[in-house]
Amino acid sequence: MAPPSKDPPNHQDADVRAVTDTPTVELPSALTCAGVPARRLKSGVFNGGVAAATSSEFFKSKSLWKPLANKWDHRLSKESKSRKASSLKGAAKYLAKPGIISLGGGLPSSDYFPFEHIEIRVPTVGQFSEEETKINGQDVRIGKHDVPEGKSAFDLAIALNYGQGTGSAQMLRFVTEHTEIVHNPPYQDWQCIVDVGSTYALDTLYRMFCERGDYVISEEYTFATAVETAAPLGVKFLGVKIDDEGLIPEDLDQLLENWDDQARGGRKPYVLYTVPSGQNPTGSTQGRVRRQEIYRVAQKHDLLIIEDEPYYFLQMQPYTGPNAPPAPLPATHEEFLNSLVPSLLKMDVDGRVIRMDSFSKVISPGSRLGWITATSQICERFIRNCEVSAQNPSGFSQVILHRLLDEHWGHAGYLDWLIFIRKEYTQRRDIILQACEKYLPKELASWNPPAAGMFQWIKIAVEKHPDFGKREVVDIEDDIFQASVGECVLLSPGSWFAAERGVKHTALFFRATFAAAAGPDMTEAIRRFSVALKRVFKWEENEQISV
Amino acid sequence: MAPPSKDPPNHQDADVRAVTDTPTVELPSALTCAGVPARRLKSGVFNGGVAAATSSEFFKSKSLWKPLANKWDHRLSKESKSRKASSLKGAAKYLAKPGIISLGGGLPSSDYFPFEHIEIRVPTVGQFSEEETKINGQDVRIGKHDVPEGKSAFDLAIALNYGQGTGSAQMLRFVTEHTEIVHNPPYQDWQCIVDVGSTYALDTLYRMFCERGDYVISEEYTFATAVETAAPLGVKFLGVKIDDEGLIPEDLDQLLENWDDQARGGRKPYVLYTVPSGQNPTGSTQGRVRRQEIYRVAQKHDLLIIEDEPYYFLQMQPYTGPNAPPAPLPATHEEFLNSLVPSLLKMDVDGRVIRMDSFSKVISPGSRLGWITATSQICERFIRNCEVSAQNPSGFSQVILHRLLDEHWGHAGYLDWLIFIRKEYTQRRDIILQACEKYLPKELASWNPPAAGMFQWIKIAVEKHPDFGKREVVDIEDDIFQASVGECVLLSPGSWFAAERGVKHTALFFRATFAAAAGPDMTEAIRRFSVALKRVFKWEENEQISV
Repeated sequence: MAPPSKDPPNHQDADVRAVTDTPTVELPSALTCAGVPARRLKSGVFNGGVAAATSSEFFKSKSLWKPLANKWDHRLSKESKSRKASSLKGAAKYLAKPGIISLGGGLPSSDYFPFEHIEIRVPTVGQFSEEETKINGQDVRIGKHDVPEGKSAFDLAIALNYGQGTGSAQMLRFVTEHTEIVHNPPYQDWQCIVDVGSTYALDTLYRMFCERGDYVISEEYTFATAVETAAPLGVKFLGVKIDDEGLIPEDLDQLLENWDDQARGGRKPYVLYTVPSGQNPTGSTQGRVRRQEIYRVAQKHDLLIIEDEPYYFLQMQPYTGPNAPPAPLPATHEEFLNSLVPSLLKMDVDGRVIRMDSFSKVISPGSRLGWITATSQICERFIRNCEVSAQNPSGFSQVILHRLLDEHWGHAGYLDWLIFIRKEYTQRRDIILQACEKYLPKELASWNPPAAGMFQWIKIAVEKHPDFGKREVVDIEDDIFQASVGECVLLSPGSWFAAERGVKHTALFFRATFAAAAGPDMTEAIRRFSVALKRVFKWEENEQISV
Repeated sequence: MAPPSKDPPNHQDADVRAVTDTPTVELPSALTCAGVPARRLKSGVFNGGVAAATSSEFFKSKSLWKPLANKWDHRLSKESKSRKASSLKGAAKYLAKPGIISLGGGLPSSDYFPFEHIEIRVPTVGQFSEEETKINGQDVRIGKHDVPEGKSAFDLAIALNYGQGTGSAQMLRFVTEHTEIVHNPPYQDWQCIVDVGSTYALDTLYRMFCERGDYVISEEYTFATAVETAAPLGVKFLGVKIDDEGLIPEDLDQLLENWDDQARGGRKPYVLYTVPSGQNPTGSTQGRVRRQEIYRVAQKHDLLIIEDEPYYFLQMQPYTGPNAPPAPLPATHEEFLNSLVPSLLKMDVDGRVIRMDSFSKVISPGSRLGWITATSQICERFIRNCEVSAQNPSGFSQVILHRLLDEHWGHAGYLDWLIFIRKEYTQRRDIILQACEKYLPKELASWNPPAAGMFQWIKIAVEKHPDFGKREVVDIEDDIFQASVGECVLLSPGSWFAAERGVKHTALFFRATFAAAAGPDMTEAIRRFSVALKRVFKWEENEQISV
């Protein structure tokens, strides 16, 4: 596979070339929302009973012309290699025998689940706001025995019993189809696993691929929890330099090219952890070409890529400034999907990307339900972990999300919801940007309009501080933090997100989120932060600030 | 603390002696369901907002006269010792400042949680059956903003946002009070943590206390998942002999007394994993004296005890045989609680018991919500794990269970529900016992009426098999298993539950569950099993079977 070209046309699929031994075969068009019913018909009878064994293979389009994924045996940890399938779960195959009565498994009877039904009031498609839902929302009923009564593909009797490490067949089908619609991975044997959230998935992936003393590579500023999850396992983070588009591929390449086991005290890293869209904390988004370059370096050094993408659907409208009208929203689903930067998964011809998706930022964090997409080999090892640990997401979460996403909204309605979220986050981002422009002195602070995510990353011109060079940067950072708290505003100091702990900081940043606070509060918060900042820098108000 | 005496009166608290420096103080009476409102009043204002930091300490009765728990630093693994609190979570303390606006944390706004309310149809106290719930159940509404509207202590805006590794304050309060009502641990600094289920908790506990090469001790037949969770971590199980009351303390003592690191290839074990009530797979229940003896051995060898108790509230009525009337159900909550064998936690003066509780067998497995009870030190280390892994149970599970258990039923109603479950399981057990008596030839099969749980453990007289001594016991076991499948019935072979894998079996068992199948199906299943058994043993029908 040739590396991706540097200058692709806009808004098209990554330049993945289909590889096939039978070049005369006609390739079917990619799955769309409208194509899902026909796709399901092709899959035959849906098996979604209590603890039904399931797999994405049942729910994907066949794509025999795509290459098979690489194998990763040489990257599996001792722990992961030694995992065996559960002996009791092995007996499940006998349950398929007609007429069999099982006294085998320890599944309790649904007779004693004290829930006759659940009803959820959820938005009608196109009327998504909280206010509209109160008035025009739909009441969707989830019964205990909806499946035998022919009312639904999922019910409480199934969802509230034990399940499989894959997640339920129902949710797995939805996320598999969604993944195919959005990313359509260019290798054959990709699968999804429904999990209890990306933090759990990340912990599991470290344990699957790393041994004590190993390094994981990431952006130089990164999601603090990713570092803190790794540390107790003896796994250290190494930061790669970033620019406005996030991780710099040349720096990644140099780091690996010049790797010295002895000097580094560890073997050459082979796991890259990256947040390509709306990166936490910097808010940067890798463009399409940037992603292709990163992927090419990963191929060169045979890296596994953990693509952590909670903010993928928080890609926003272009920032048009305080006085220009907003850019028009995507008019169709096709336009919407084409507006998104293609994921690393979408260009992953080798099966080296393990993508983590999450509903936390687009539905609710408390669902504790996400999914990974990876090769069938990696998914199989991942399931072995789940079944002797978190098992599978809550049945309440699974059945409620399934009813909402699959049966109430459907794939098309869910994309409409995501466009709604895009609009809302664009508005929120614009509020914080306008506040920054209004209140922050340009001499002391600079920032880029984030293209995705929920974070505004503000660079502080630490070199303008009277004590610069005399005191540590983190001490000046702490002064600003404490002064901000004094002014009744909380922003997160950039040093908290350093990939490498204990490193001497030369630059100074603060992270502000525009996800949570109401609009006027955000504006006021930035005003207060500005007051604190100026006080710490002993900076005199002057005419450069427009009030 | 003297070891428990051997001959205690029936149905009373374990003989725990309160230790105090101020013996004149008047000890308050133990917490009861009726005492909960007064208890809550004493705690002051309830803090249960979004991701509120919380602790059992807020919800327990003060008990300064009790001893403090032992410290377990010397037992913590390298991984656990090195865990640090999250830096971002540390900033949460500033949120308490009045008037502060936070742009710090990445919590999304509840405006975009697409759930206006959830309504659950649940049983009215005293009318617990599925049929009664359909007709007389109550519809309980959970709104998005119930807390600011003064309708409840918990709502969707809180439950569906991010949470803490402790679980929500609301559920933690309920399980803490429940634990105090039922077990009232005899040391001061016990706490609970709400987790995503006992399988996850067990995985976490192994990682907290074991290193590769370590042994965990358990009953010689044990929960297969407990063994399979440990194996990939390099942790091996060692089985202790059992009798009708489960684990034999003398055998445990001998094993530890005679431990030889060299011969065993590992250091002396200090973790005991045990299922005291309705043990899986043997159905055995440790009596009160047995538990005291086990605890005494644990004290002698300074063991940590993982008390896995999913079946604690599946302690059933005494078995009265096929023709006698059933024993009357407990008439009061006090009578009910006194009818339960006291837990190891209840006699744990040292803080060496880590109890795992579960709603899986008494509410529903799909809740994926359980809790541990242990010393504050162990709980703190456990939380550090949760917050960089599974985080906390699903918000849907938490808010639904809280509304049902805490606000709809209350503690008293929940005990009523547990008495209902007791009655139902007693009936189910009696059906399988009667089927065994009717169909299984006494020459080939023997069993005890289980006092708790969901399993009937059937011993097969393998020595009566024509090939006994010529073929391996597991091969004869497999013949019976295959013949059973041929007869359309599934029971689980005992060898699947061996604590030590690869050991030569001399006895032969099958496990049947009476939790799932309908009554007539269970009876038919045992009849079929009997046919298979007799065929494999070439056993001729004779007059000894009453038909």
